[in-house]
Amino acid sequence: MKEMEALRKTAEGAGHVELQTVPIPEIGPNDVLMKVYAAGVCGSDLLIQEDRHFYEAPVTLGHEFSGVAHQVGENVTRVAEGDKFVADIECGEGKWLGVTIDGAYAPFMRVPEHVIYRVPDHVSLDDACLAEPIVATHHLIQERAQVKVGDDVVVVGPGPMGIMAVQYARVCGARQVFLIGLKSDEKRLRIGKEVGADHLLYSEESPEETVMEVTDGKGAEFVVECSASGKGVRHAIDCARKAYEGPGGKGVIVFISLWGEEITINLDEVSLGQLDIRGSWSWNGVETWHHAIDLLNRGVFDLDPMITAHYELDEWETAFANLRSKQDVKALIHPNGRDWVG
Amino acid sequence: MKEMEALRKTAEGAGHVELQTVPIPEIGPNDVLMKVYAAGVCGSDLLIQEDRHFYEAPVTLGHEFSGVAHQVGENVTRVAEGDKFVADIECGEGKWLGVTIDGAYAPFMRVPEHVIYRVPDHVSLDDACLAEPIVATHHLIQERAQVKVGDDVVVVGPGPMGIMAVQYARVCGARQVFLIGLKSDEKRLRIGKEVGADHLLYSEESPEETVMEVTDGKGAEFVVECSASGKGVRHAIDCARKAYEGPGGKGVIVFISLWGEEITINLDEVSLGQLDIRGSWSWNGVETWHHAIDLLNRGVFDLDPMITAHYELDEWETAFANLRSKQDVKALIHPNGRDWVG
Amino acid sequence: MKEMEALRKTAEGAGHVELQTVPIPEIGPNDVLMKVYAAGVCGSDLLIQEDRHFYEAPVTLGHEFSGVAHQVGENVTRVAEGDKFVADIECGEGKWLGVTIDGAYAPFMRVPEHVIYRVPDHVSLDDACLAEPIVATHHLIQERAQVKVGDDVVVVGPGPMGIMAVQYARVCGARQVFLIGLKSDEKRLRIGKEVGADHLLYSEESPEETVMEVTDGKGAEFVVECSASGKGVRHAIDCARKAYEGPGGKGVIVFISLWGEEITINLDEVSLGQLDIRGSWSWNGVETWHHAIDLLNRGVFDLDPMITAHYELDEWETAFANLRSKQDVKALIHPNGRDWVG
Amino acid sequence: MKEMEALRKTAEGAGHVELQTVPIPEIGPNDVLMKVYAAGVCGSDLLIQEDRHFYEAPVTLGHEFSGVAHQVGENVTRVAEGDKFVADIECGEGKWLGVTIDGAYAPFMRVPEHVIYRVPDHVSLDDACLAEPIVATHHLIQERAQVKVGDDVVVVGPGPMGIMAVQYARVCGARQVFLIGLKSDEKRLRIGKEVGADHLLYSEESPEETVMEVTDGKGAEFVVECSASGKGVRHAIDCARKAYEGPGGKGVIVFISLWGEEITINLDEVSLGQLDIRGSWSWNGVETWHHAIDLLNRGVFDLDPMITAHYELDEWETAFANLRSKQDVKALIHPNGRDWVG
Repeated sequence: MKEMEALRKTAEGAGHVELQTVPIPEIGPNDVLMKVYAAGVCGSDLLIQEDRHFYEAPVTLGHEFSGVAHQVGENVTRVAEGDKFVADIECGEGKWLGVTIDGAYAPFMRVPEHVIYRVPDHVSLDDACLAEPIVATHHLIQERAQVKVGDDVVVVGPGPMGIMAVQYARVCGARQVFLIGLKSDEKRLRIGKEVGADHLLYSEESPEETVMEVTDGKGAEFVVECSASGKGVRHAIDCARKAYEGPGGKGVIVFISLWGEEITINLDEVSLGQLDIRGSWSWNGVETWHHAIDLLNRGVFDLDPMITAHYELDEWETAFANLRSKQDVKALIHPNGRDWVG
Repeated sequence: MKEMEALRKTAEGAGHVELQTVPIPEIGPNDVLMKVYAAGVCGSDLLIQEDRHFYEAPVTLGHEFSGVAHQVGENVTRVAEGDKFVADIECGEGKWLGVTIDGAYAPFMRVPEHVIYRVPDHVSLDDACLAEPIVATHHLIQERAQVKVGDDVVVVGPGPMGIMAVQYARVCGARQVFLIGLKSDEKRLRIGKEVGADHLLYSEESPEETVMEVTDGKGAEFVVECSASGKGVRHAIDCARKAYEGPGGKGVIVFISLWGEEITINLDEVSLGQLDIRGSWSWNGVETWHHAIDLLNRGVFDLDPMITAHYELDEWETAFANLRSKQDVKALIHPNGRDWVG
Repeated sequence: MKEMEALRKTAEGAGHVELQTVPIPEIGPNDVLMKVYAAGVCGSDLLIQEDRHFYEAPVTLGHEFSGVAHQVGENVTRVAEGDKFVADIECGEGKWLGVTIDGAYAPFMRVPEHVIYRVPDHVSLDDACLAEPIVATHHLIQERAQVKVGDDVVVVGPGPMGIMAVQYARVCGARQVFLIGLKSDEKRLRIGKEVGADHLLYSEESPEETVMEVTDGKGAEFVVECSASGKGVRHAIDCARKAYEGPGGKGVIVFISLWGEEITINLDEVSLGQLDIRGSWSWNGVETWHHAIDLLNRGVFDLDPMITAHYELDEWETAFANLRSKQDVKALIHPNGRDWVG
Repeated sequence: MKEMEALRKTAEGAGHVELQTVPIPEIGPNDVLMKVYAAGVCGSDLLIQEDRHFYEAPVTLGHEFSGVAHQVGENVTRVAEGDKFVADIECGEGKWLGVTIDGAYAPFMRVPEHVIYRVPDHVSLDDACLAEPIVATHHLIQERAQVKVGDDVVVVGPGPMGIMAVQYARVCGARQVFLIGLKSDEKRLRIGKEVGADHLLYSEESPEETVMEVTDGKGAEFVVECSASGKGVRHAIDCARKAYEGPGGKGVIVFISLWGEEITINLDEVSLGQLDIRGSWSWNGVETWHHAIDLLNRGVFDLDPMITAHYELDEWETAFANLRSKQDVKALIHPNGRDWVG
């Protein structure tokens, strides 16, 4: 048992993603060897495959993950063998697990102790695998701007971030949550409804008119743009609550998209309606991670409906294809299968 | 002396701006009859002429003004004959002085008392005529967002708002003020330098590179976009200080432009750099006006360099043309000439 | 049926509260005659009785109320006969319902239309009678400061405001809610637990030590002081999360108490721990009321456990006594009995 | 020249401050040996003498300082021999220069490079010695809360922090600055006036009445309490602008005092007037220090009037006595005399 199969980016350029046999990692005194339970397939994986995201080849991919401590370095104090844990992928000095150093699309992964967060036993490792999107959503909705009790909230884009944002808005006491998607997003929209959206709106059917009608012309106090489309930004501006007079700032739009190209929009209503826009990325360090673990611990979110498929490691091509075609919201790859942990 | 010449929008549609003979206004018990000293030519006047702004014809134009109380209604208590004053143009119920009801491009104007603000004797009526742009700038830079002591500030667009913003940033204790304009804005840029800009940058010469170089790669904590161009928005995003990690909000961009059309931009850096954008329009009611009068009173701004020309009423066509060609920063029309007040 | 019994402050000075026979109010064209269903007994009523609060005698007391439109003035458009409604007690021009003009401790009350808020049919009039405390709590916890998802929250003082604050903190996604009271508050503390407090702590038993222990020495991000005692302020400071380094503002204390006398405290930890304190009173006008009605409408709070007693109008002395002895959390007086409305 | 005289706390307990002969410090590869130009006498020095502040004896005192790099460790890159510099006193791991490790009341001091900030040549080392109070004031007035253009500002307590706050408020564009002191503070009050206070008020003469009168009953938007007295807190509450209605937060009080004992105050107006109080201590790390150096660099403050005396090292007893009796605002001790640097 000295070797294992790993899904790797083997060289620079488009493509070059394949299964390879590699040694099981050796750990140092400050490391933990994770036996990987689940690794979430993320849009960034697709971009790395397409050579449109940074990485350092050759490298084992997989940067959303959960697992169990299989072996523990001699200096490690915060984790014991058998503990469930997750980890921040930023290890410092430009080392990103699953991006520039070996990640979780393999049975075992080396993780430095300082980025590890233990997960309570009662939390399932499927759910724990979504810790990183929870971190991003917490930063988006609590740290960069706050949904307040009674706010009407519009979420543009029913991908994993959008569906998490729907749930998060509910946790914050939002009054009504509107979720906007394309007609081709029907499956994702239905999951959004299952986890708390009050209104499903189609981008093709002037969703801003419905938002204005349902809110008596007021608009939404909070809009989350995570569609990464120009039309999504237009919806965000059109749906936000305007303040044509007085102090302004009645409508807040949060961006967590990368569009990856120029978009064409009319920004006049941002000025006239005195809107706030806040870009969100990253998080507030350890503090945000502790919040995410606490939310997992308390079972605040209904994560199971978001996990739409489970794959073995050698089914990775299907998993990538189904995310690319938006069949899946969040798919998990289980390099050691699903049956070995309680 | 029952009639007077007034510059009026006489009918709907493009054009239809001309001098007409009209009766001197009669005032009610709650009104003051202003003898107009100065009326500032504003970009909105040009838009009304072109039928690209709201108005109600026929109407006397002129909505930035200063003057003296010529006659005072019997219920009026806050102004006496001979007092210098200015006024908010929003009279309530959709009545805007110089836009939907008769304004200041005429020797006399009726002003309801409740929108009037007295101006101390030691303030010149030329300067007082800039009260409204001061109100807008105060809202922009103190109420919607705050320039802090030590901030590096970039102002995009050296029009009247931009030059006022340069001065305001100085008053707030800004560290360095950069003013970006077109090469054809040379005259305006030089005025910007006269009133406090540390660096004049040309839009045509990658101004963001200079900003980043001068700030050691940090960028500007505060950017004011008042160029109303797509390129201006791109400059704003490029010059703002990014926060790729942590809480975000290190760079704040304020919009006071109306672009009037779609623009094409890449917003990725708004997300990645966790920027804040705040649209600004209007003001916080009476409180903002009191601040503007106080700033006039204290002589905080050097307004004279901004006033680049004075015209008689019958020179209005020249005044409009010189603003359209950006010859002038702020031009004043004096319907009663300039020599009648101390 | 031209006369009715009303509980009135009949003259200035201590005492002078008694039942009197008065005419049923006549209404003007812009008024509604409320048939009162419930009137909440408030600490202010006790203070008016004791001559320690402003009022204008003679006046019918009762300023927390709910009822039904019995008769509607000819200009009234927002309410029809038979509608359930509540109202803001501030009618403008210094007129306060139940304080300076006749209030709700009577079968009928005249209410000007402009302060009225309709209540949906499915909301019980018992619950609607708590609209005003909801308004105050919304201002406290959303408008003056925000409890964020994951915050640890301490509420000092288990009176009506404190118990509402416990519930509100839950609605905001608080992590853990601690409620501090005296040992003599046992009944109220138990109601606090019923509606969501995780930890009941006794003021007599160093509650700050428990808060610090349970939060691993971190302290509470948010503390609501509504005990109106010096000891309560000390608990608030001791329990709040300190930031001895860096930006500060990690711990926020909100005051909604009036102590009515000097208190003796050590404020050093406010400076050293860089705490924020925010006084809260009043509300943000119509906007706050709309939020309160929406919260009632959505059934966000469990109000029934807070309503600990119902009284007939002629039992008012018992009602006042039971509030004074803290037997009751919120007691309702029903001047028309409880059986006449669906 | 291997030994030097140093002013040291030689043992625990009250007293035990005296001149001793000690070796000139040896530096490591990451250290700089500062030839001390000036060391400011601070209230904390008096407290250490009285055993009322933390320290680790034996230790050379002196924690506000400026000087020149006399010798530079081999790994040091940011400072060269002959450079002027100052330093943060917090060296990490609980090591505080002049408090727990040897400080500046001596001709030479060892300073680790990572806490050093270079000072431009054109800044005098007298002024540079005030870098630390500038850091504290910047945190107080820009980072914990912001004085805005047009704010009326009250400063309570004319000590070094208060006089710096007066100047800082001016830099922020304050409208009027009021400085409150005791009648026995006459000398300090006059310095406050010299550097920018508009109104000097005596604590003994109801200063809040003057503030309210001069501001037409509005009060001050910003109050800095640095008197460390109960009466100072009462003045702060009384002078702050109240918001009895609406959103609140019109008046902000900043605390930078340690009172060291319980005080007796009435807090009702904090609730009723919806005031904000923010404790301030420490700073935002490197960012705040860079701002302080920039402010020194730009000559924003008039620091010379604050420096009321210069002493030789062997005059330390006089220096301590004159601070204790409030003869001095800021006194500097020059362990190498004043004539050796340009």
